[in-house]
Amino acid sequence: MAQEDIFKKLVAHCKEYGFVFQSSEIYDGLGAVYDYGQMGVELKNNIKKYWWDSMVLLHENVVGLDSAIFMHPTIWKASGHVDAFNDPLIDNKDSKKRYRADVLIEDQLGKFEEKMNKEVAKAKKRFGDAFDEQQFRETNPRVLANKQKYDELHARFAKALNDSNLEELKQIIIDQEIVCPISGSRNWTDVRQFNLMFSTEMGSTADGASKIFLRPETAQGIFVNYLNVQKTGRMKIPFGIAQIGKAFRNEIVARQFIFRMREFEQMEMQFFVRPGTELDWFNKWKDTRIAWHRALGFGDENYRFHEHEKLAHYANAAVDVEYKFPFGFKEVEGIHSRTDFDLSQHEEYSGKKIRYFDPELNESYVPYVVETSIGVDRMFLQVVAASYCEEQLEKDSRVVLKLPAPLAPIKLAVLPLVKKDGLPEKAREIIDSLKFDFNCQYDEKDSIGKRYRRQDAIGTPFCVTVDHQSAEDNTVTIRYRDTMKQERVAISDLGNIIGGQVNFKGLFGKLN
Amino acid sequence: MAQEDIFKKLVAHCKEYGFVFQSSEIYDGLGAVYDYGQMGVELKNNIKKYWWDSMVLLHENVVGLDSAIFMHPTIWKASGHVDAFNDPLIDNKDSKKRYRADVLIEDQLGKFEEKMNKEVAKAKKRFGDAFDEQQFRETNPRVLANKQKYDELHARFAKALNDSNLEELKQIIIDQEIVCPISGSRNWTDVRQFNLMFSTEMGSTADGASKIFLRPETAQGIFVNYLNVQKTGRMKIPFGIAQIGKAFRNEIVARQFIFRMREFEQMEMQFFVRPGTELDWFNKWKDTRIAWHRALGFGDENYRFHEHEKLAHYANAAVDVEYKFPFGFKEVEGIHSRTDFDLSQHEEYSGKKIRYFDPELNESYVPYVVETSIGVDRMFLQVVAASYCEEQLEKDSRVVLKLPAPLAPIKLAVLPLVKKDGLPEKAREIIDSLKFDFNCQYDEKDSIGKRYRRQDAIGTPFCVTVDHQSAEDNTVTIRYRDTMKQERVAISDLGNIIGGQVNFKGLFGKLN
Repeated sequence: MAQEDIFKKLVAHCKEYGFVFQSSEIYDGLGAVYDYGQMGVELKNNIKKYWWDSMVLLHENVVGLDSAIFMHPTIWKASGHVDAFNDPLIDNKDSKKRYRADVLIEDQLGKFEEKMNKEVAKAKKRFGDAFDEQQFRETNPRVLANKQKYDELHARFAKALNDSNLEELKQIIIDQEIVCPISGSRNWTDVRQFNLMFSTEMGSTADGASKIFLRPETAQGIFVNYLNVQKTGRMKIPFGIAQIGKAFRNEIVARQFIFRMREFEQMEMQFFVRPGTELDWFNKWKDTRIAWHRALGFGDENYRFHEHEKLAHYANAAVDVEYKFPFGFKEVEGIHSRTDFDLSQHEEYSGKKIRYFDPELNESYVPYVVETSIGVDRMFLQVVAASYCEEQLEKDSRVVLKLPAPLAPIKLAVLPLVKKDGLPEKAREIIDSLKFDFNCQYDEKDSIGKRYRRQDAIGTPFCVTVDHQSAEDNTVTIRYRDTMKQERVAISDLGNIIGGQVNFKGLFGKLN
Repeated sequence: MAQEDIFKKLVAHCKEYGFVFQSSEIYDGLGAVYDYGQMGVELKNNIKKYWWDSMVLLHENVVGLDSAIFMHPTIWKASGHVDAFNDPLIDNKDSKKRYRADVLIEDQLGKFEEKMNKEVAKAKKRFGDAFDEQQFRETNPRVLANKQKYDELHARFAKALNDSNLEELKQIIIDQEIVCPISGSRNWTDVRQFNLMFSTEMGSTADGASKIFLRPETAQGIFVNYLNVQKTGRMKIPFGIAQIGKAFRNEIVARQFIFRMREFEQMEMQFFVRPGTELDWFNKWKDTRIAWHRALGFGDENYRFHEHEKLAHYANAAVDVEYKFPFGFKEVEGIHSRTDFDLSQHEEYSGKKIRYFDPELNESYVPYVVETSIGVDRMFLQVVAASYCEEQLEKDSRVVLKLPAPLAPIKLAVLPLVKKDGLPEKAREIIDSLKFDFNCQYDEKDSIGKRYRRQDAIGTPFCVTVDHQSAEDNTVTIRYRDTMKQERVAISDLGNIIGGQVNFKGLFGKLN
């Protein structure tokens, strides 16, 4: 099946089974904002718990924080977001539509690629098995002509972006004769920078309402609380502060479902170290974080590191953890050595000293920072994409979410074989004895086979069927999601069988 | 100790031990916004877990949801917030300061009360034990004069509020000769309504940026997802949807620490029922919720119900759960029978049918709703206030947070008696064997007594001291926070001793 089709199916599956709904759907939706349904919220909470506990429980020197979305506006001046957190936008004067200039040019690059691919596809069809694609690409004049156009444009575009040269971006659009998809005209305005932060007014206008921003990242909340946490927590360097929270970016072009949203959630950890040791810590956290991903069991070969060639102005090392999504390898997490940039900026803008006295060195310094930053929503999409399977069975087929058991929204479904003879009551007795420990679901509707399929679709690792024998000898049939194997077990053993699989200890054990 | 002093101490304690910091403190703060520190975030997360699990795990017919903060703007038109979620504001033309008109009048009422109380206090001092306060209040001319002024103003004020009569509010301020505390003048503007919702612009302006709001309550996110959850979750009425999330209100007068903030967090559950049964369910949820509060063990006498006399336009019954804070009985939770108001409004504004087909009645209807709504931050303050104790000991005194063990940020502190002889290594071995199960803290600095005090101050229920005997026979001294009793136990028993106290089963057991 084409990767694109799988992605469409994933999105439909997420909606159909209560994982992800479009926000404000009955009002025809709100762009690039999504809600998590009754299954989605449980999966999301479990992902957050896996991250939080792996940071805070397993590391003696990492503590948590929950700073507010609203922060003092000068913080975003100090961090550079007020001046430099921009997208280059251009308007078409006829359609009055606004576009990201860089996306228009990327689309143009895509057209050259498409032309090359079409030539290749045509030739492949004509020559069949004898076709040598590489040779064709290197010799066919039409492919080569498009390749040259592609390479020239790509180089010019990269330079313009690198120089933040807005005039040149506009000139590229003119030279390439790019037209507005709505009006079809080339009647463009100049390219202007558009800040991605959402702003609002706090207080009422007469006594001086102030313009504040919705934070575009959670990291700054950690930096401005560095002194408070270090002092009140009596923390010694090296130590880390972990935080989960919402962030907001006014993306003009938001794409790919929950992969890039205007409102999203981050899990960030800032690790404060002695200057000069940051690259060692950077490498340690790289290892720690990839192990965290791989412990989920989705296949080591589906992850890779992508080292940044061009570093942000504040960084001296940066790497992405990428996962092989249906639409290609994409970033799920970033690990960055941010130097002392942020803390120094806050020293300058706040006028407060942000120093650590290192008793071993007998001197004070601004700590260096290594950051691990991961999007909850993107991680959610990664987990669902990695778990989604369509399986052809002997007489049947099924869609099953092979979620790691600790992440599954529902751990156990309890199914009375029939709706009478005291079986529903027996089923509820089992739920009552286990519901303090994990999320159980009762289902008595339709055939057992249909009920199994419904549980497969939401990733429930265990189903238990209560039949007439259950009332006699207190045993049930337990059925395992992935193998579909069934066996007879004592009701009194269920807690141990399921508990051993669904708690996080197994995952944590792989991280140590 | 005066109640006011206790409150000040609480606030200082929250800062000193890493529970609550003022937001953006190094930038001199942001009004009515707070951050949760390394201890606060754990306590807050535990409160949320207690609520979430008691809703979702313990009720077969309650499921979760996590809807976004950003919603379609028409939702707030439908809910009534655009037109009626206002505070009446008035400006002083000389100082250019803005005030809530209702608060100015409340302060004036407070002055009459104060005058009465002063007369009473003076007389009490003069007459000593023989003083009959009630008789004095009923007969003293100066008290009676002020009482009459109070009653007249109170009646006039209540009527003006009830009629939303802004002219009358201004007239009261003029008639009462209320002056601006800054300029001292009576040069007032008219009273105008000020909407409490924060707004922002989504999208860029050329392609029609739209004004959206930061949600002022999480409830509407549940209502607009009612159809999605009911259908994809195959829910049958009666059923509930529970949600925890941030909400935002641009309070002009924000008071009392984290009791009333501009950015805050709510835990709301909307329970959908058959019309006509809502008052039965209202009473059931009243019982369920007060039991949830009382299970924490802070004393049944410190809670009371406050029935609303005047109901909101959408409600046919409403009650608050109040707790006795240092500053008096205040609301911690509201339980409201909201009728079919919200769902009907969304039917009208969205044009979508929001009906439930009831197979027993064989008819469709708009469900009625019973809501339970509680502020996380307010609950946090309640728990800290209820737990905070200053104890005089034989030779010493201590401040101890007697938090219910399942809510405590740190469950176990492991303390090597000395920093040598392998005791730190032994202590860390214990932590390594327990850290998967709960939050442990290692502390080797200062005397054991000082370390106990630090753990008391953050509410750690168990401290374990590792001494030379520990290396020999694998036992430690366990010390209990509340009784300060110590006993020798095997290291291998620690998991059970502590686990039995800190997990939520004990609390849940009281709710069934």
